[in-house]
Amino acid sequence: SEQFDPTEHPHRRYNPLTSEWILLSPHRAKRPWQGQVEALDETAKPSYDENCFLCAGNERISGEVNPHYLGTFVFQNDFAALKPSGPEKRSDDPLFSMQTEQGESRVICFSPDHSKTIPELEIGEIVQVISSWQEQSAELGRVYPWVQIFENKGAVMGCSNPHPHGQVWAQSQLPTMAAKKLENFSEYYKKFSRALLNDYMSRELLNEERVVASNKDWVVVVPYWAAWPFETLLLPRFPIQRLTELTEVNRQSLADIIQDITIRYDNLFQTSFPYSMGWHGAPFDDDSHPEWTLHAHFFPPLLRSASIRKFMVGYELMAEVQRDITPEQAAKRLRELPSVHYKQRAI
Amino acid sequence: SEQFDPTEHPHRRYNPLTSEWILLSPHRAKRPWQGQVEALDETAKPSYDENCFLCAGNERISGEVNPHYLGTFVFQNDFAALKPSGPEKRSDDPLFSMQTEQGESRVICFSPDHSKTIPELEIGEIVQVISSWQEQSAELGRVYPWVQIFENKGAVMGCSNPHPHGQVWAQSQLPTMAAKKLENFSEYYKKFSRALLNDYMSRELLNEERVVASNKDWVVVVPYWAAWPFETLLLPRFPIQRLTELTEVNRQSLADIIQDITIRYDNLFQTSFPYSMGWHGAPFDDDSHPEWTLHAHFFPPLLRSASIRKFMVGYELMAEVQRDITPEQAAKRLRELPSVHYKQRAI
Ligand SMILES: O=P(O)(O)O[C@H]1O[C@H](CO)[C@@H](O)[C@H](O)[C@H]1O
Ligand SMILES: O=P(O)(O)O[C@H]1O[C@H](CO)[C@@H](O)[C@H](O)[C@H]1O
Repeated sequence: SEQFDPTEHPHRRYNPLTSEWILLSPHRAKRPWQGQVEALDETAKPSYDENCFLCAGNERISGEVNPHYLGTFVFQNDFAALKPSGPEKRSDDPLFSMQTEQGESRVICFSPDHSKTIPELEIGEIVQVISSWQEQSAELGRVYPWVQIFENKGAVMGCSNPHPHGQVWAQSQLPTMAAKKLENFSEYYKKFSRALLNDYMSRELLNEERVVASNKDWVVVVPYWAAWPFETLLLPRFPIQRLTELTEVNRQSLADIIQDITIRYDNLFQTSFPYSMGWHGAPFDDDSHPEWTLHAHFFPPLLRSASIRKFMVGYELMAEVQRDITPEQAAKRLRELPSVHYKQRAI
Repeated sequence: SEQFDPTEHPHRRYNPLTSEWILLSPHRAKRPWQGQVEALDETAKPSYDENCFLCAGNERISGEVNPHYLGTFVFQNDFAALKPSGPEKRSDDPLFSMQTEQGESRVICFSPDHSKTIPELEIGEIVQVISSWQEQSAELGRVYPWVQIFENKGAVMGCSNPHPHGQVWAQSQLPTMAAKKLENFSEYYKKFSRALLNDYMSRELLNEERVVASNKDWVVVVPYWAAWPFETLLLPRFPIQRLTELTEVNRQSLADIIQDITIRYDNLFQTSFPYSMGWHGAPFDDDSHPEWTLHAHFFPPLLRSASIRKFMVGYELMAEVQRDITPEQAAKRLRELPSVHYKQRAI
């Protein structure tokens, strides 16, 4: 009888971080596309834009004026989704449960240069971004158990300003994804006395087919259960639970690998590659969290070209995530790309 | 001290169907939008398009020719995500779990008229669409425990062809969302000996603030835990578990309420309102499923206007869904809209 071939036969894979399955339909990549194509904005941006709320020296919507910053610059989001104070309320009605929430939302400008994105920054500048993530985690982690650092890159990802920036939202309760991970990591640890993601990292390094890039401290894989076409997971090769624990040395190697993966992304379709990325470190509470490994996700929507994306709609919203190319195929494509940015090569 | 005001104070609400929380930041609706605006396609479409794969009499990509159908027309998806046969394989490795999957994907053309969408069809034509959903459910439900009926409407929702159509994907295993619901409905039933969604429907009818429309058999609410800005949930007011159990009478009243809600949607921003919609009936297996109530979800992405959508990105992908307007505010806006289509009124 016919042998199972992951690049030919529909199958489901399990995401042990979320307890969700995904449906893989590899043969489907062949279908023609007559749907929406994304508008590309390939016009070169200036290093300074007088209408940008994030450029140094400019006035924001709140009336505040940005300092003439040189490295990174952090400020409270002028339309924060979370506020540090407010009345408390809670209902445990099984059909109408709710709970008030406290927190803070801040914006982190990565560079004063309006025209650059992470893959175009110098290593030293990426190190500064990492330091800023660390400072924010330390400061907000003293008050809030959950500090969510993330970046929405590109208009396709709802990013409302092209100036290179990310965000940090801190809050009093563990959000849905964090609570799921805590549960899954804890269960695995109870069973095996080891951290799930540390075990996973070792297994991926043995069998290199999903590895995209690595250095002595870090590895980037397209996870076995990836939902987005070119989704990646950034994992440490050493034990670490939170961004706040990074040393000078691992910060440098982290900057290297972030530059590497984001350059590969830009090179894939020779476009500034849109994505949402974010960090998941152990909650800031009194527990030592031996079950938890610090990691970052990159969730990029593009599928076939700079203008054709994967839509998470219909079946995905009603049933489960469906993907067309296999994670192994995606990893191979990313791995085989040059690690020099296409704009640099063009010069 | 200050009183809690759901339209002012950030809070989290719990979705008892998925066990997930959402973050509500109502004050955030005030922020200005400088991000991506969607391209609007308001050009009138012809009733027949010779380049359309779904129009009657046209040749599809597979070389097959569509019949000269008059009502609905169903065919196997030429690039099906699921196939009825294939080798079997399964791995229970905790980090690399997988399972092959069998199934079918079909396309349901709602009408031969290329220019129309559901809210523009006559009641009799919507009744035909419902009958087709019933027939497909009955036929595929004899073979597969899960039959997912859905529609992606609009290019923003990844719909690759404007011809009015939906899809049905049937499969051997319960997909992620179905499995979650089965678990949550069963747990509630074990505790209260009543169906969760039936209880929820009764509670919503007592307190009308989230009700958008209703008739003697059906009610449409913006659920307490809605994720998308104008998300709605369509619920029966009588006990029913699957589409296959609809009578002639409830089919008529269902057509009425589907026309009502989709017209309100089009009227909201005076545009053909994009959404993904889908049905969740009880699995087709040997169980009687007293815990399960048939229901449909509408997940529409638009937020502020015909061209400004909600993006489920960064924080949403990494932490949890965040919304800006309250479900009560959304319900009020939909409820106050005329139930005559804006294109009809313009005449
Ligand atoms: O089947 P279609 O319309 O070509 O494709 C669309 O719906 C599918 C099912 O929801 C999704 O998987 C695709 O991402 C989307 O583009
Ligand atoms: O905060 P921004 O960049 O204005 O907004 C963007 O990111 C937020 C956090 O992921 C999302 O809730 C918004 O939908 C998105 O448009």
